[in-house]
Amino acid sequence: MATGDIVLGPNQYGKAECRLVRITRDPDAAGDATRHGIEDLNVTSQLRGDFEACHTEGDNSQVVATDTQKNTVYAFAKEHGVHSPEQFLTTLGEHFVGEFPWVHGGRWEAEQYTWDRIVADGDPHDHAFVRAGRETRTCVVQRDGDELFVVSGLKDCTVLKSTGSEFHGFPRDRYTTLGDTTDRILATSVSAAWRYTPAAVASGLDYNALYADVRDLLLEAFAQLHSLALQQSIFAMGKAVLEQVEEVAEIKLSCPNKHHFLVDLAPFGLDNDHEVFFAADRPYGLIQATVQREGTPAEPRAWASIPGFA
Amino acid sequence: MATGDIVLGPNQYGKAECRLVRITRDPDAAGDATRHGIEDLNVTSQLRGDFEACHTEGDNSQVVATDTQKNTVYAFAKEHGVHSPEQFLTTLGEHFVGEFPWVHGGRWEAEQYTWDRIVADGDPHDHAFVRAGRETRTCVVQRDGDELFVVSGLKDCTVLKSTGSEFHGFPRDRYTTLGDTTDRILATSVSAAWRYTPAAVASGLDYNALYADVRDLLLEAFAQLHSLALQQSIFAMGKAVLEQVEEVAEIKLSCPNKHHFLVDLAPFGLDNDHEVFFAADRPYGLIQATVQREGTPAEPRAWASIPGFA
Amino acid sequence: MATGDIVLGPNQYGKAECRLVRITRDPDAAGDATRHGIEDLNVTSQLRGDFEACHTEGDNSQVVATDTQKNTVYAFAKEHGVHSPEQFLTTLGEHFVGEFPWVHGGRWEAEQYTWDRIVADGDPHDHAFVRAGRETRTCVVQRDGDELFVVSGLKDCTVLKSTGSEFHGFPRDRYTTLGDTTDRILATSVSAAWRYTPAAVASGLDYNALYADVRDLLLEAFAQLHSLALQQSIFAMGKAVLEQVEEVAEIKLSCPNKHHFLVDLAPFGLDNDHEVFFAADRPYGLIQATVQREGTPAEPRAWASIPGFA
Amino acid sequence: MATGDIVLGPNQYGKAECRLVRITRDPDAAGDATRHGIEDLNVTSQLRGDFEACHTEGDNSQVVATDTQKNTVYAFAKEHGVHSPEQFLTTLGEHFVGEFPWVHGGRWEAEQYTWDRIVADGDPHDHAFVRAGRETRTCVVQRDGDELFVVSGLKDCTVLKSTGSEFHGFPRDRYTTLGDTTDRILATSVSAAWRYTPAAVASGLDYNALYADVRDLLLEAFAQLHSLALQQSIFAMGKAVLEQVEEVAEIKLSCPNKHHFLVDLAPFGLDNDHEVFFAADRPYGLIQATVQREGTPAEPRAWASIPGFA
Repeated sequence: MATGDIVLGPNQYGKAECRLVRITRDPDAAGDATRHGIEDLNVTSQLRGDFEACHTEGDNSQVVATDTQKNTVYAFAKEHGVHSPEQFLTTLGEHFVGEFPWVHGGRWEAEQYTWDRIVADGDPHDHAFVRAGRETRTCVVQRDGDELFVVSGLKDCTVLKSTGSEFHGFPRDRYTTLGDTTDRILATSVSAAWRYTPAAVASGLDYNALYADVRDLLLEAFAQLHSLALQQSIFAMGKAVLEQVEEVAEIKLSCPNKHHFLVDLAPFGLDNDHEVFFAADRPYGLIQATVQREGTPAEPRAWASIPGFA
Repeated sequence: MATGDIVLGPNQYGKAECRLVRITRDPDAAGDATRHGIEDLNVTSQLRGDFEACHTEGDNSQVVATDTQKNTVYAFAKEHGVHSPEQFLTTLGEHFVGEFPWVHGGRWEAEQYTWDRIVADGDPHDHAFVRAGRETRTCVVQRDGDELFVVSGLKDCTVLKSTGSEFHGFPRDRYTTLGDTTDRILATSVSAAWRYTPAAVASGLDYNALYADVRDLLLEAFAQLHSLALQQSIFAMGKAVLEQVEEVAEIKLSCPNKHHFLVDLAPFGLDNDHEVFFAADRPYGLIQATVQREGTPAEPRAWASIPGFA
Repeated sequence: MATGDIVLGPNQYGKAECRLVRITRDPDAAGDATRHGIEDLNVTSQLRGDFEACHTEGDNSQVVATDTQKNTVYAFAKEHGVHSPEQFLTTLGEHFVGEFPWVHGGRWEAEQYTWDRIVADGDPHDHAFVRAGRETRTCVVQRDGDELFVVSGLKDCTVLKSTGSEFHGFPRDRYTTLGDTTDRILATSVSAAWRYTPAAVASGLDYNALYADVRDLLLEAFAQLHSLALQQSIFAMGKAVLEQVEEVAEIKLSCPNKHHFLVDLAPFGLDNDHEVFFAADRPYGLIQATVQREGTPAEPRAWASIPGFA
Repeated sequence: MATGDIVLGPNQYGKAECRLVRITRDPDAAGDATRHGIEDLNVTSQLRGDFEACHTEGDNSQVVATDTQKNTVYAFAKEHGVHSPEQFLTTLGEHFVGEFPWVHGGRWEAEQYTWDRIVADGDPHDHAFVRAGRETRTCVVQRDGDELFVVSGLKDCTVLKSTGSEFHGFPRDRYTTLGDTTDRILATSVSAAWRYTPAAVASGLDYNALYADVRDLLLEAFAQLHSLALQQSIFAMGKAVLEQVEEVAEIKLSCPNKHHFLVDLAPFGLDNDHEVFFAADRPYGLIQATVQREGTPAEPRAWASIPGFA
């Protein structure tokens, strides 16, 4: 069998999950260096470019070692600070594409974990923290030559409405057994990712403030919609973000429908008026949707290698 | 080889991880039934007693089915309410020991997850929640005949001090390479379990208020101690609880030392004055200690089958 | 701010992780119905089509309930059998696209777990099994109208070479500290996914036999290559598959470099001639590459929503 | 409130989860050093003794650093080899108790992972391996002064019988809804731990051969018993080990009943004669039992800090 026609296709490589903790002094800029701040990230760097000789011949002369990428992450945390995952990853990307002519682009990803100050003697402590754990902030920055794509997001944000959710009117075929309901628990673990417009990215953004705004809008929209389907809630969440945050070009949401089944207590002579539920694990519904501004051109390069979205 | 002398030893069985969500109306007792509360638990029930015939002959005439135990969990959530994991598990235990003469005791365990209200239009929402995620509350209630043991706890409470921690003066042998430090990050994920005194249990307790007190005392003590060893921090945390909460007879803490290594940036011409750290996964230190009132008799029946403590 | 221009973009929904165990009788077709076979899958079904009214208005009249999709999975396991994940998912896809005019396509995914027969009295048992656990077989079938895409794969296949691996000759910049090595442990957990050619899919394939062939070729190529970089090993693995299995159009591999660091025992007066290693968790290298036949047109619809590949 | 009476109770500390890979040459003793063997462990060392001053005052003069314990693990892998987890941990324990007068005992634990040789060109490869993944071998060695306790075990050994399992005849109360069955799937993930007799430990044992024997006996007994309850299967598994392996004093088994529910296909006009099952996650039955030789004295020091057993 001829083998000369077997070639390398799209590829990327780097160092994944560099756990980086950056301590800052005087984070409130109040002139108090004994007050510390903490930035806690999990950073992945992957490069794209001309790496064919490595794959086909084991020639590493153009392979920026993954260990070097890791070192750069830690060195840049000192030299440039973190400030926001978006800003930190953008700086990393500029470096690698600028430094090595055969690196044409890449993908830089981070998770960020939030810490609260421990309250001691009635006041938030200067240098003692407890991990908040409510949701994980995410970010993927990608470059293709000079083009820059910034996608921010969150995951593991678990929300629940104990009423104000219905589901009925769906088509019935031979395999349909589900009944209609006009009152159910609606619960999901929100994963969301939103792409900032190129113009907004170019203008310089306060990514931390924008993150907080988007997260709060998602939660508020989930809470406020009287829901007829999880799809409707998801669309409302995305729409709220696009309506309020003009810097966002489109948003993708991936939401498991975490089923809470009303337990049948009739065999025990008990009624159950939406009081006692069994929270099921698997299977679960899985609803994924994009909400975007009409006419927005598709930008697959911004979304490449971002798992979990339609 | 003689086999007649092979016998059944200690045993227990039941249903594990019954995921129970209980919605309550008017949780603040303000007369507003449109305001919901949520209690979210993971409940395990295990019975001890005379189950030998089942093991040796497959005779199930005394085997309260694990499915029946599960049904009882859900039915009791309706009939008795949850109120607190301690109270709910105690009620379950009374039932099984009282109902089935051959059931001599058992073990009932729960995790509880905390939900915050979503803020919408500036106010906490009546029936929309976001999972808090900061720590998981735990409880194990055990019965041996008429004796009742209540152990409450928490886990996955991750805390960190960015300074105020030293470690030096340890013995050095042939295998010692670690240097002294007078300034390091100290981080751990606290698992704690405390046993209430029999007198306190008998008197009836506000377990929810006690839980909040103990958790806050643990955090505050961690924050306040200038630490010379994680052992010292752990002892201080336990001591603070025993000093302030007389209902607690003893407390056990199991704390991984989540190492944060200062990254050596010297090869890159950079200093690193406690700013940039690598958060390591494995291996990790593991410190486990009991803090108790002097003269407290050991009570192994309270601690049986509670994993993760010395 | 105008909101009329906010629209629904790409979306899909369905039921995820339907855990399906199918017991078959006489799996060897030897006429012995007391001999059982087991097929153990985790099946996800997601539909694409015209679901806009549900998102924007909560109109469910075209929403095939995720519960119905789940029911269909279990009913089809009875009506059609499983045979292979590829065949089972293809049948599911035909059904949904054929049954509901507004369903234009979708994505059906499965993991399959392998069981070995327990050896009892020296012979493989007829109906007692132990889960093999070596790797997980994966499959994603996607449809876009009449077009069918079949991508098969595996994950969690952990391999290691204790020698026969080098890494040197990489470029050195300001942030490079890694030394050259001519002998290291090379270890990875292989995730691979290969797309069958449309012609092969149309002709009907013995997917189970092909899966076993591809898996064995990947392992053998990893073992046999004297490796100068993990990239080179990955390319060799993909090339071996394309050379030997003409039904495969392209293959993508995603391989963490699971670092095994030689422990420095010199402080203890001991040499360490590639004997004692520390297996690190994070960070890890992450190498992802596509190997394809020259001139193969890109087929993004086959790879949409498949996580973890470049 | 008086605080002078708050004291340190039982405690232990050390380094957890030291991931150790040991490569050996000529493991078959055939004189072929190009043939490699691999021993892959996750080792935890914890010391018990006089550590009160550290807890109460931060005095580390008797605290053998957890880093030193880790170094000792790696150094001992070179100096003494691994051979078996039991032997390796015993050697570690002797060292720490012998070297530091204030260390009175401790707990040493390991998991071991199995690797198979990759088949290349039809033969098992000399230095390329694939992780087997079927079960994890475990071991806990504890010392109390001169007394030595060896408990070996396994976990994550998932087994299933597709028939030959019944469950009926259990008592029915107000909360019982489960029906009788004379044919069900019986599946569990076996965790087992067995204690070797002091005499056997003192005599020197071939722990690797014993492990393989016990594991095979457990599997065979599970397969062969026509089961009337999971309890009966567990007892039969333990009994088989005690009957055949005189070196074992007692064995504890902890087995989730991994429910496989027969799917009701009647609504779709289909029968389901034990063919199509839903494999549930939670809740699950949990059966834990000890099987022992009559008259065996309890030895709680051997079982301290071993999670997951009654």
